[in-house]
Amino acid sequence: MPALPPRVIALDGDDTLWHNEAMFSTSYAEFRDLLLRHSDLDQATIDERLLLVERRNLVTYGYGIKGFTLSMIETALELTEGRIPGIAIETLVQRGRAMLAHPVELIDGAVEVIETLRERDHEVWLITKGDLFDQESKIARSGLADLFHRIEIVSEKDDATYRRLLDRHGVDPADFAMAGNSLKSDVLPVAALGGQGFHVPYHTTWAHEMVSGPIPYPYTELASLRELPSALGSR
Amino acid sequence: MPALPPRVIALDGDDTLWHNEAMFSTSYAEFRDLLLRHSDLDQATIDERLLLVERRNLVTYGYGIKGFTLSMIETALELTEGRIPGIAIETLVQRGRAMLAHPVELIDGAVEVIETLRERDHEVWLITKGDLFDQESKIARSGLADLFHRIEIVSEKDDATYRRLLDRHGVDPADFAMAGNSLKSDVLPVAALGGQGFHVPYHTTWAHEMVSGPIPYPYTELASLRELPSALGSR
Repeated sequence: MPALPPRVIALDGDDTLWHNEAMFSTSYAEFRDLLLRHSDLDQATIDERLLLVERRNLVTYGYGIKGFTLSMIETALELTEGRIPGIAIETLVQRGRAMLAHPVELIDGAVEVIETLRERDHEVWLITKGDLFDQESKIARSGLADLFHRIEIVSEKDDATYRRLLDRHGVDPADFAMAGNSLKSDVLPVAALGGQGFHVPYHTTWAHEMVSGPIPYPYTELASLRELPSALGSR
Repeated sequence: MPALPPRVIALDGDDTLWHNEAMFSTSYAEFRDLLLRHSDLDQATIDERLLLVERRNLVTYGYGIKGFTLSMIETALELTEGRIPGIAIETLVQRGRAMLAHPVELIDGAVEVIETLRERDHEVWLITKGDLFDQESKIARSGLADLFHRIEIVSEKDDATYRRLLDRHGVDPADFAMAGNSLKSDVLPVAALGGQGFHVPYHTTWAHEMVSGPIPYPYTELASLRELPSALGSR
């Protein structure tokens, strides 16, 4: 007899339930164009430096758009040795504001999948990583907030984070599954604790979320979010 | 017979358990000096504009140092019509980084008060407002984390926030007290729900946290954090 599906199903937000990375890709493109106009550098140098500064700043700023905006400004100043004009810095500040106000566009099937999981008596959680204020705003604008039994916004998604959440709410890892687009943040730490990890790739992955080397835990790869309910089976 | 003191005592972080506003005052002074060097404006105009931009941006950035840094950059660009040199913008970015790395200096009596409350069998919570990543970092550096039974980081402290926290943890407002330096964020919303509010003023108050008009709920004013245990009485 197959084991029952886990009672608690958690879903990631950015690039799992709603589009996010596309907005960052646009910002990368706009940053590149701006720096091409204000320097003699080539595209690759500009892209690489922004990525490097962004990574270097994670330890200082954490995840999120405000930190990314500060990283764009810092990179622009570094690459031009402080010579980029104020009006260009203003463009970057405005780009950050535009990202924060960007409409939340749901991933295909998001509402239906959550509703199906609820109908099957799962407890459905949202576990999302990033800036508290920005994530709360996005969750509100997504229209999904009332569909979740629990919403957790965390600053990092590692083994310790999931362990703490499960302990706090008295959930056995064997009774827990997490689905998301990041192997590093959504799938591997949950699989490491003995929960079920479901990987739902987004068409682009932020370089910082890339995993290298073999994957040491079993997990399930899905082609789309819509496959999640049948992959879990019935309770 | 007097009523028992409340079971759950919550404390605010910034300017209640550790110094915070002093660091912002220093940033205001450095911003003023920088703009005096790069414009013909007077001190008052510079201070007022930064405060105005900061307030205007709360709805976009929320509370915290990253948003404040972006507000400093935006104000500098506005006040100089984009003419401030890149090197000055870099100074502002660095000022933000310095704030994020600033040592956490505890308010006199912080540890002793928490320990006394614990010895008297209170459940002691920390409820702090602001940027998730920055607050987690400060809590870790404060050395106080292990002394709390519960730590909650929220994006806003209003009636709805406290109501949600108390509901979630099954605490009756009559069994709840909150102590902090902000009438607006720590005292009034708790008193409005029927909990006990203790106001522990800090020597400076951020303009945004000022309350105008009469206070419609009873609360207790303390001269210092050290007075809290005796003001609560014994359980």
